[in-house]
Amino acid sequence: MAVIAVVTGIGGGTLRDLLLGRTPVFWVNNPVYLWVMLGAAAFTVLYVRFRQPPLHALEIADAFGLALFTVSGAQIAEGFTRQGLIVVLMGTLTGVAGGAVRDVLCAEIPMVLRSRQLYATAAIAGATLYHLGVLLRLPSPVPTLIGMAIAVALRFASIYGGLRLPSFRLPEGGR
Amino acid sequence: MAVIAVVTGIGGGTLRDLLLGRTPVFWVNNPVYLWVMLGAAAFTVLYVRFRQPPLHALEIADAFGLALFTVSGAQIAEGFTRQGLIVVLMGTLTGVAGGAVRDVLCAEIPMVLRSRQLYATAAIAGATLYHLGVLLRLPSPVPTLIGMAIAVALRFASIYGGLRLPSFRLPEGGR
Amino acid sequence: MAVIAVVTGIGGGTLRDLLLGRTPVFWVNNPVYLWVMLGAAAFTVLYVRFRQPPLHALEIADAFGLALFTVSGAQIAEGFTRQGLIVVLMGTLTGVAGGAVRDVLCAEIPMVLRSRQLYATAAIAGATLYHLGVLLRLPSPVPTLIGMAIAVALRFASIYGGLRLPSFRLPEGGR
Repeated sequence: MAVIAVVTGIGGGTLRDLLLGRTPVFWVNNPVYLWVMLGAAAFTVLYVRFRQPPLHALEIADAFGLALFTVSGAQIAEGFTRQGLIVVLMGTLTGVAGGAVRDVLCAEIPMVLRSRQLYATAAIAGATLYHLGVLLRLPSPVPTLIGMAIAVALRFASIYGGLRLPSFRLPEGGR
Repeated sequence: MAVIAVVTGIGGGTLRDLLLGRTPVFWVNNPVYLWVMLGAAAFTVLYVRFRQPPLHALEIADAFGLALFTVSGAQIAEGFTRQGLIVVLMGTLTGVAGGAVRDVLCAEIPMVLRSRQLYATAAIAGATLYHLGVLLRLPSPVPTLIGMAIAVALRFASIYGGLRLPSFRLPEGGR
Repeated sequence: MAVIAVVTGIGGGTLRDLLLGRTPVFWVNNPVYLWVMLGAAAFTVLYVRFRQPPLHALEIADAFGLALFTVSGAQIAEGFTRQGLIVVLMGTLTGVAGGAVRDVLCAEIPMVLRSRQLYATAAIAGATLYHLGVLLRLPSPVPTLIGMAIAVALRFASIYGGLRLPSFRLPEGGR
């Protein structure tokens, strides 16, 4: 479980750093990240041993994590490229790839690909609005706050409001 | 589906760049690659909505893609190493790894490992002949054309002619 | 099978090199590693065709491989960081990641995550004792020998003595 927790937590940022060539990757010289993940995993394991977690607690924590990772991933990518598409993609990867690696390790199709919930979509929207805010030269914490707010809002709409993506179905007789 | 299309298209070259240390990877400063993949995915989705794709159309497109990716991967590796084995391996990886990542994301055993069709074999043969052509100092587009031709020919022999690899079976009583 | 053998053999060290930014990765300019893996795979395939492998032969070979890869991975990480946690983690990754990638390619949950055998634990203990030996300035081959000995001993205790980890079970009514 410790392995899964750490992979989920740092997987997205690690992939971003590898693709951008920011090596050694971020946690090699800053092991505080690993300690935080291990601590959080231990706390959660102990907690669910004694009490029920509050309704949706994990999904809410996950929504804030997704928003934070996505916007900070986009921020780092801005130091490497001027291409908006790449900035948004790197933000999205940072936000969602950790969970995807976790699902691959568990031999499942990554939730982010499978689910009709707004997950990748929330990350894409958050990274896009953050980057637009930067391009419009909004003052410093504003783009970050806007980007995180929209990502969290879309996740909440999906968790509480049942907002869903349309699904694609191959027509009968298609290949 | 956009994610899957992009991963399949750029996965092999991305892995090659990571292993060689060519970072940021090729598409970070050249997002035209991503746009082409997204465009092709959108076109294909729309097309199969309205018409049957022609027989073997996807496999034929895939055969040319495999040949092109394999030879260009080998070409790039030649700038990093003189080791023929590594050049051939990098070409093969560039050609086949995108599809393997796609299969892993879909929680399947990669087709390239599973199938008795000549797939990795076509890439290995194409990269080897391309590299031999370079070592023999054939004039400039000749090695590329030879390498691509043999890879496409082996794929076609597999698709249309039913050419297959022998399979390995553990003898009864083996471990 | 050649692909699987090579991935298992060099996967852990490749991941370590990518994360540390030691690129091109170790086998690009030293293809002797690839030849050794291919040779060993060919030998094993031929061997099991004609004779039963001795009892536990593969697991014993694997135990020594795990010990060697783990300690050498930790050694390389020491050149990049002073953080003990990272040294131990990189050693463990080098030891176990190749097999994990192999399992992912075969669409299985990696044995290292699934099994209650002491596998990652053996690597963690070996890397930790090796690194402690270095910190205590023991003379040169001693930390290596101690680290490898403890990793092999724990694997043997697991294979022959049936030593197992406790498993974690979510209490009834948990999330």
